[in-house]
Amino acid sequence: MDKQLQTSREFLKDNIRQRIDFSQTPQNRRVPPPPIEKPWPQGATTIPLPPLDKAKFAGNIDLWLAIAQRESCRFYSGEPLNLDELSLLLWATQGVRLKLDEGHALRTVPSAGCRHAFETWLCVLNVDGLEKGIYRYLPLEHALLFSHAPEQLESLIVSATLGQRFTGDAAVTFIWTALPCRMEWRYGLAAHKVIALDAGHVCQNLYLACQAIGAGTCAIAAYDQTGMDRLLGVDGEEEFTIYLAPVGKKG
Amino acid sequence: MDKQLQTSREFLKDNIRQRIDFSQTPQNRRVPPPPIEKPWPQGATTIPLPPLDKAKFAGNIDLWLAIAQRESCRFYSGEPLNLDELSLLLWATQGVRLKLDEGHALRTVPSAGCRHAFETWLCVLNVDGLEKGIYRYLPLEHALLFSHAPEQLESLIVSATLGQRFTGDAAVTFIWTALPCRMEWRYGLAAHKVIALDAGHVCQNLYLACQAIGAGTCAIAAYDQTGMDRLLGVDGEEEFTIYLAPVGKKG
Repeated sequence: MDKQLQTSREFLKDNIRQRIDFSQTPQNRRVPPPPIEKPWPQGATTIPLPPLDKAKFAGNIDLWLAIAQRESCRFYSGEPLNLDELSLLLWATQGVRLKLDEGHALRTVPSAGCRHAFETWLCVLNVDGLEKGIYRYLPLEHALLFSHAPEQLESLIVSATLGQRFTGDAAVTFIWTALPCRMEWRYGLAAHKVIALDAGHVCQNLYLACQAIGAGTCAIAAYDQTGMDRLLGVDGEEEFTIYLAPVGKKG
Repeated sequence: MDKQLQTSREFLKDNIRQRIDFSQTPQNRRVPPPPIEKPWPQGATTIPLPPLDKAKFAGNIDLWLAIAQRESCRFYSGEPLNLDELSLLLWATQGVRLKLDEGHALRTVPSAGCRHAFETWLCVLNVDGLEKGIYRYLPLEHALLFSHAPEQLESLIVSATLGQRFTGDAAVTFIWTALPCRMEWRYGLAAHKVIALDAGHVCQNLYLACQAIGAGTCAIAAYDQTGMDRLLGVDGEEEFTIYLAPVGKKG
């Protein structure tokens, strides 16, 4: 078999674990865990998200129907999302259920070793009450942090997703970045496969939560790494784009 | 930064896509796609799963509650699962919604390029109506294929999961294998990251579907690769274990 394919397949196996000296991981060297949430500037203006009102969403859709009716959706009606809806989607994908300590929190999705190695960025194009721009979700505060508002954001995100035009038509695109050091702290070289598995957990909850608000999504794994990282303003090394999902109301 | 970590992180990025000559992928060389389901011996005895009766599960749990109440569960009551429940879990994770042609089917989970590069194996320990043993799910038939029944199966699976005893206490352990050629057919070297993302989609649906039947799960990414592959009887190269999830009724 092609040597490159063989090497790449190894990533999906768990042979690496046997070659790791776990006594040398940061965790076992008693290095404190990285923070749950990437630090943000003191005094920055945050936008609180509406409290999660169970009455608004409980009973909206049965789990069975959400799973049965889920399908990839690349065409959107152009109707905006509102902040209640965005609040639900963010909570369902990365919401904190319980903060345990400075380095650990239980979320609405599982993560290997409770490491949750992601930040959630949003490319907001059509959400009631928000200016167009790039935002970051603050799960501990359940709030948004405005980052920046590049000119011609629609064109930039279409270009950074290799011309996939539905990112420019979406109300909002979820962009997950990986911060690998959070997972490497515990697992060293065994961190990276489980980061990818975890990103799948997160995205699946987004698919299902969209069903509760008449929206749809279609995940994107084909993108311009440098272009996406530049659009967000992340360094591409300690934090980089791993997965995306444009969301819009169904047409 | 540690060179090995840097190399391993690359797996999570999408730089590889730019180096692939997609004109040379099997798909673009007009090689037929691999089959949706791994072939099985003509005449083998299959065990039909109960038809998915919407009346049995629709209304069991709201999506909101399923997400809010999900938590990793490593302790089980010892109560068996029944075939209706197992049927639901299999459908929710890999069920076929629509067969499009010999190489494509829409399932209850999304997959990059509709490739669905998994088979689902079960280590059955305590399911009403099934003998202990290793089975494979046939999504096209919504049936089980009995594979083999090793002696001391509980010990074997605990050992193959590096001593994680709850695999021996579970009613059933879902074991997903990757068949990378299904994804490589379309994506070449860009196949492997998306296989891992896809495995996360599948497992998240299992977490949520467990909530509908009073069961719990806790995914396992740390396992003995050779031991797990040997337990299933897969070759470790064209098909190998990628992720596991023991399931049992909550105590």
